[in-house]
Amino acid sequence: MNENIKTPTTATPVSCDITSSVAARYGAAEADVPLAWNDTMDLLLSHRSVRGFLSDPLPAGTLEALIAAAQSASSSSNVQAWTVIAVENPETKAALAKVANGQKHMEECPVLLVWCADLARTKQMGERHSYPTDATGFLESFIVSVVDAALAAQNATVAAESFGLGMVYIGALRNNPEEVARILKLPPNVVAAFGMCVGTPDPARPFNVKPRLPQRVVLHHEPYDQSLPQEALDSYDTALMAFQRTEKLKEVGWTGAMKSRWRDAKSINGRDRIRSALIALGFKLD
Amino acid sequence: MNENIKTPTTATPVSCDITSSVAARYGAAEADVPLAWNDTMDLLLSHRSVRGFLSDPLPAGTLEALIAAAQSASSSSNVQAWTVIAVENPETKAALAKVANGQKHMEECPVLLVWCADLARTKQMGERHSYPTDATGFLESFIVSVVDAALAAQNATVAAESFGLGMVYIGALRNNPEEVARILKLPPNVVAAFGMCVGTPDPARPFNVKPRLPQRVVLHHEPYDQSLPQEALDSYDTALMAFQRTEKLKEVGWTGAMKSRWRDAKSINGRDRIRSALIALGFKLD
Repeated sequence: MNENIKTPTTATPVSCDITSSVAARYGAAEADVPLAWNDTMDLLLSHRSVRGFLSDPLPAGTLEALIAAAQSASSSSNVQAWTVIAVENPETKAALAKVANGQKHMEECPVLLVWCADLARTKQMGERHSYPTDATGFLESFIVSVVDAALAAQNATVAAESFGLGMVYIGALRNNPEEVARILKLPPNVVAAFGMCVGTPDPARPFNVKPRLPQRVVLHHEPYDQSLPQEALDSYDTALMAFQRTEKLKEVGWTGAMKSRWRDAKSINGRDRIRSALIALGFKLD
Repeated sequence: MNENIKTPTTATPVSCDITSSVAARYGAAEADVPLAWNDTMDLLLSHRSVRGFLSDPLPAGTLEALIAAAQSASSSSNVQAWTVIAVENPETKAALAKVANGQKHMEECPVLLVWCADLARTKQMGERHSYPTDATGFLESFIVSVVDAALAAQNATVAAESFGLGMVYIGALRNNPEEVARILKLPPNVVAAFGMCVGTPDPARPFNVKPRLPQRVVLHHEPYDQSLPQEALDSYDTALMAFQRTEKLKEVGWTGAMKSRWRDAKSINGRDRIRSALIALGFKLD
C-alpha cells in the first residue's frame, strides 16, 4: 500500500521569524499582537496569492494529497456536497480564463482546480434508491455545499503551500456560471463556486504577503462591537498603501479599494446576476 | 514586540504513519491512494471533530494566533467581509447552545467562536465616507462573505489543531439566525454563518477520524463525470458502517444517513426558512 509515495523535497520558504511574519501580515504599526507560534503558524501566516507559475507538472501524489487534505476538513452532517474538477488541458484552461477576464495565471498553472457546490450527487442517490431529496431545494442546502467546498479548498491550500507550491483562488468563475457549466459539462444542481490555480511559483515573479485589517476590527468579544474604530482603519490604510507602493499598484489604501469594489452592480463584473444563473443551473434557493 | 509570546508545548498527537492515516480517512479497502506526505499532511488528515472538552482556558496568545491564521486566508478582492465573536460567558454559551438543539460541548468549551458573514462594516464605511455600497444587495455579496468566513475559519481550525486543541463546527446556529443575532446584538447585514467550539479535548472521551468518500467520487478529471460508481458508494457504506459500529451509532452507512438528511424541510431543523431569516436580518440576496 502507498507504494508510489514521493515526498517532495521542496519546503515552503518560511521566515522562522515571528516579528517579521506578523509585521508582514498586519503592517509595521500593528506588529505587536502577542501570538502563540509554531511551524504551522509560520506556514499559515506566510500565505500569499501566487499569480505566476512555472509549467512544471505537480509531483506524483501531490494532487491526491491535496484532495485527501480537502476531504479531511469538516463537512456539515457529513454530506460532502462538493466535487472538485482537475483541469489540465490548455484549451479548457484558456476557455475558463476567458470567463475570468483573461487571468493569464489560469493558463500558466499546471492544474486549475474547479471547486463545485454539488447537490446533484445526493439527488442522483435519491433517484437510485427511490427516496425524496426535497431539502436540496432550500437556500440552506446551497449554503451548506458552498461552505463545505470552501473548508475543503482551504485545507487543500494549506497542503499545497506545505509542499512549496503556490496557489490563488479564482472567484471570477462566478462571472458566468452557465458558461463554466457548459465548458465542464456540469449536470443540473452543480455550480463552480470558485477556481484555484496550483503550481510551482515562478521565482522570477515573487509575490508578497498582503496586510490585513488590525485584529481588533475583525475579532470582537461578545457582544458584536459596532464602533468600527477609525484609528484602526487609518492604520490599515497606511499599511495597505505601503504594500500597494511596493507592488506598483495605485495607492488607494483599503478605504479607496472598498469604495470601487462595493459601488454598484458594475463593480462586481456580472455577478449581480448570480441568483438567476443559479436558478438556471437547477438550484432552487427557497 | 511580541513580548508575551508563549508557544504551547502540547503538540497534536499525530500518527506519523501514512498507511494508518489514510486507512482511517478512507477505510481499509481504500487505503492505497498514493499520497505525497509531510508533517502538515499528517496534521490535516488527523482531523476529527471534538465534542468533549476540558474547562481549561486557551493558553495566552492562542486565540490571537487562531485569528491571525484566519486573517491569513485569502479574501475575495481583500474585502474581509467577516467578523468573529469570541464567546466565553457561560450564559451566552448556554443561550447559543439552546439554538443548536442543546449541544452540551457548546457549554463545555472555553471559547465558542461565532463566525459571521458581515456586510455591515462595508456599509458603515460607505456611510462614513459618503460612497454608495449598492453591490452589497446581491446574493453574490452574501456568497463572498460566507466563503471568506469559511476560508478564515478553516485556517483557524488548522492552527488550533497544530496547538493540540480540538474543535467542532456548529452549523446549527443557522437553525435560528434571528435569535443568534439577538443574543450577540448583531447589527443589520451581519449573520452568524456557523459556530466553532475550541478547547482542550477531554482525553476521557476520545473522538475518531470519520472516513470520507473514495477520492474517485469527489475528484473528477475534466469534464464532470456523472457516472457515480455504485461500487465506490458500496465501499464507502462499508467503511462508514465500521466507523458507526465503533462509535456505537446506528449502522446506516452513508446511503442511510443521506436518506434522512435530505428528505424534506423537517430534516434540516428549521433551516428551510433561512432565506426569510436573512432578509429579516437586512440581507437583500438579489
